[in-house]
Amino acid sequence: MLRNYIFSSLNTKQLGLTVVLSGWVNNIRDKGGIVWINLRDHYSSIQLIIEKKNISETAINDMKLLNNDSVIRVIGVVSKKFSKHKEINDIEIKINFLEVLSYSNVFPFILDNKIDSNEFLKMKYRYLDLRNKKKKHNLIFRYNLIKKIRNYLDLYKFLEIETPVLVKPSLEGAREFVVPSRIYSGKFYSLQQSPQIFKQLLMMSSFDRYYQIVKCFRDEDLRSDRQPEFTQLDCELSFVTRKNILIIFEMMIRELFYFFKGFELKKFNTISYKDAICNYGTDKPDLRFEMKFVELNFLFKNSNFKIFDKSEMILGFFIKKHHNYNIKKIFELEKFIKDSQFKIDGFFYIKYELDGSFKSSFSDFFNLNDLNNFFSVLGLEKGDTLIITSGNKDPLYSLMSDLRLKLGNDLNLISKEKFSPLWVLDFPLFKFDNIEKKYTSVHHPFTSPLNNINLLDSEPLNIISNSYDLVVNGIELGGGSIRIDNANLQRDVFKILGFNDKEIDNKFGFFLNAFKYGVPPHGGIAFGIDRFCALINQSKYIRDFIAFPKNNSAFDLMTNSPS
Amino acid sequence: MLRNYIFSSLNTKQLGLTVVLSGWVNNIRDKGGIVWINLRDHYSSIQLIIEKKNISETAINDMKLLNNDSVIRVIGVVSKKFSKHKEINDIEIKINFLEVLSYSNVFPFILDNKIDSNEFLKMKYRYLDLRNKKKKHNLIFRYNLIKKIRNYLDLYKFLEIETPVLVKPSLEGAREFVVPSRIYSGKFYSLQQSPQIFKQLLMMSSFDRYYQIVKCFRDEDLRSDRQPEFTQLDCELSFVTRKNILIIFEMMIRELFYFFKGFELKKFNTISYKDAICNYGTDKPDLRFEMKFVELNFLFKNSNFKIFDKSEMILGFFIKKHHNYNIKKIFELEKFIKDSQFKIDGFFYIKYELDGSFKSSFSDFFNLNDLNNFFSVLGLEKGDTLIITSGNKDPLYSLMSDLRLKLGNDLNLISKEKFSPLWVLDFPLFKFDNIEKKYTSVHHPFTSPLNNINLLDSEPLNIISNSYDLVVNGIELGGGSIRIDNANLQRDVFKILGFNDKEIDNKFGFFLNAFKYGVPPHGGIAFGIDRFCALINQSKYIRDFIAFPKNNSAFDLMTNSPS
Repeated sequence: MLRNYIFSSLNTKQLGLTVVLSGWVNNIRDKGGIVWINLRDHYSSIQLIIEKKNISETAINDMKLLNNDSVIRVIGVVSKKFSKHKEINDIEIKINFLEVLSYSNVFPFILDNKIDSNEFLKMKYRYLDLRNKKKKHNLIFRYNLIKKIRNYLDLYKFLEIETPVLVKPSLEGAREFVVPSRIYSGKFYSLQQSPQIFKQLLMMSSFDRYYQIVKCFRDEDLRSDRQPEFTQLDCELSFVTRKNILIIFEMMIRELFYFFKGFELKKFNTISYKDAICNYGTDKPDLRFEMKFVELNFLFKNSNFKIFDKSEMILGFFIKKHHNYNIKKIFELEKFIKDSQFKIDGFFYIKYELDGSFKSSFSDFFNLNDLNNFFSVLGLEKGDTLIITSGNKDPLYSLMSDLRLKLGNDLNLISKEKFSPLWVLDFPLFKFDNIEKKYTSVHHPFTSPLNNINLLDSEPLNIISNSYDLVVNGIELGGGSIRIDNANLQRDVFKILGFNDKEIDNKFGFFLNAFKYGVPPHGGIAFGIDRFCALINQSKYIRDFIAFPKNNSAFDLMTNSPS
Repeated sequence: MLRNYIFSSLNTKQLGLTVVLSGWVNNIRDKGGIVWINLRDHYSSIQLIIEKKNISETAINDMKLLNNDSVIRVIGVVSKKFSKHKEINDIEIKINFLEVLSYSNVFPFILDNKIDSNEFLKMKYRYLDLRNKKKKHNLIFRYNLIKKIRNYLDLYKFLEIETPVLVKPSLEGAREFVVPSRIYSGKFYSLQQSPQIFKQLLMMSSFDRYYQIVKCFRDEDLRSDRQPEFTQLDCELSFVTRKNILIIFEMMIRELFYFFKGFELKKFNTISYKDAICNYGTDKPDLRFEMKFVELNFLFKNSNFKIFDKSEMILGFFIKKHHNYNIKKIFELEKFIKDSQFKIDGFFYIKYELDGSFKSSFSDFFNLNDLNNFFSVLGLEKGDTLIITSGNKDPLYSLMSDLRLKLGNDLNLISKEKFSPLWVLDFPLFKFDNIEKKYTSVHHPFTSPLNNINLLDSEPLNIISNSYDLVVNGIELGGGSIRIDNANLQRDVFKILGFNDKEIDNKFGFFLNAFKYGVPPHGGIAFGIDRFCALINQSKYIRDFIAFPKNNSAFDLMTNSPS
């Protein structure tokens, strides 16, 4: 027998009981006749006390070579612990048999929680890094999160149904892994990027509610929050509207937060895509702090200031009640803007000092009266600062979104313990890809338009989609849509995306065919499980919640793969 | 709103309530002024009654084109059903609004349960075939089975931990799918065949009990019970012996049978690999019926009968108390043997007729006295038949195993409702591949020897492994082993399998390295989920329990994949 107790089950109730224990040596103190070993199993640790006279000569010799993290098996008696240091655990095990099961070398790195310390070694020896209590608990958290999600969905009559991983190539387009078939030489499967088509087919099969916790694959250059394989909670429901879906999944997220964080989230806010862009410059705004953009065209356009006149848009931030926000910090902002990938026309500031004077980057052009006037129109006061940027809309919004986050951090507006969930609605159905010179789907080609279907031929960019993203603290946690349930509309959408009839029939013929046999209205949503774990634990790195992650270059340093 | 009730929730308690329902038309009867529609949702069906005067002209017209399996949305009032035919469901819905959501064409085939009827069309239109109640319930069964498995394992402190799908090529050898990497041109991942190495690394990470319900991939020619991607329940435990594992998983299987079949399985029998081969000719014996082989060397060797004297082995079956087992049936057996892929030397029979005479295929050689003597020595009586075969051991065992199953069926010895689980133990660690001229693992290279490690260099074929297979009704449901936990032994095993040190370091270096840091004794087991579903439902086809299976040639007829 290798053990008959896990350590956490032992307490003073078992005093006098002989137990068999196995585990890893946490530390060992040899005081001559007596040796103390702190032994660890998966769950906890326990104190062993070994009087050398009670164990064999062999055991004494074997102990000499014992390093931390070696594995031993012992037999001993549960005893009351006597110690000068009062400890929480008030038993210890008096050992009369000890056997070394496996010796450990000294670790190639220290099990710490420092980010970027020995990151290469930690990836290479991932199996050792996972002995780190925090990393281990990340995976236990992940297990518990998924368990709760399953329980919730089971209660709401969702069925988990597995869909194929090996699918037809190019069902979903770019960046897919291809898998050559050995049986059919010259032919390929691809690895599913998401079960989108299959889950819709399940609705057409008359299943009511589907979910799957499923590995998906994307062969793309990686960023810190992407892995070539990632796990998705994928859901689809029949006979639902957007409202139904938002309610069901808002409730789910709220229950998960209540369970794991111990607090109730407020009712989720909603915002339209358009408002998100206009106010925050992004469709993933971090609403832990407010700080909307202010559009300043009305104030500065036609003021004969050339940069403003040639700019498409003039935006501003009010920095209110931060009179310590000084010129040095403003120069940092200017540098941040210059270093940004997004190019804009102008950056200016006006600071109204407490002494009533103005510091401004265009004092040459606007006089004291003008500046006073601006501040009074905008309702700004002494001590406040006005930041002004101008340029073409798209880069300006993107840059201002980054700038907003920087200001949020600089001004300490972002509470680390706050979660601000937000449904972003009413995305456009299409966007225009200026490089490829064609329309692409903002979500995916199966997303249903919300209205204005009549604009499909004339103004596709003005069609709003029946979609929704869940954004929490600026991170996209999930997203979905009501789907197209009509073959003609689906074909029209494919055509706008640049497919001709032959290509459509070749790639999607089987799918369009399925629309002929009674299709229920349906929609769904998907959440990134890895990212969910990271978010709820306020970690920046999704790889902390994956047992054996690849690195940022999709490389597995432990096994040396791909090879 | 698309609906506010699923049909199964409606009953006489809601009489008078106005409800919104959506579903598929099961059938429609138009009797002039009144139309009856039987409407189906995922869960059940319900009767609609439509007086044409109560609905709009448009609705009446739309109804005219209504085929079965079209999707409609209705609003109506829950009413008491008045019918000459007393039905179980005693409500119907009086409709005052009807909208067609999606028309259906006539199906390309009939939703029946006949095997091999329209199999091609059923695969091509899998989404329609899944509307078949039985197929749908297969997937619901699968969901419930997995749910129960998860609950059981959770209770026993197993954690589900995901391992990578994209792994280093050739960790496990042949028949793997390779996946070219786009980022690292010329390099490959492969798709995992099982999480074997990763789950062992998790034990080395000091996780206590792991499980995963996980897709695995094998690129091999398919048989009726194989798919290129299949789902496995994969488990691994630290500090366990074989006995621990057999108890935990026998209990799991028993609980599942009790829950889903409503009966208690008897305590599982165990048999050694050697006994399984000697008695039943296979390591997967179907023990729903006994009928062991009888070794007849003692009786027929040295009887100067040449065929027997040159044969390595003489085996027999007793067919007792089946005096109707006549010569015609014996000739069928002979034909079965001739048609078999396994070639043997001799097939003979002796039948002791009720009238005291013998019918025998070697009456020319043995006289009445001999035959009487044989029957008396073997304890056979009037009406019994003795079947005798001889040949080389391996083909003879294989053929006799097939013959045993045929006799079991012919003699009606196999009860369809019986389940006979059996642990097969003590497999050899290695077998010798006569074609490749090398040793291969009977299970896999990580399996621990049970004893005789000293024979590793001299007689590897005589080493018994610490492994176990669970066989139910002749089907291998799962299998596993206690693993090697020592780097030197692991390296020795790799060497016997034909790897040199350089190859070992290249392929498994990272794994052997992990043995240096304190390895717990560990072992595990894996079960085929698809096969589990099929077995417990007494279905021959695992594809009946997969939402979107490939066909027997790994081809997806629905999407035309691979392509």
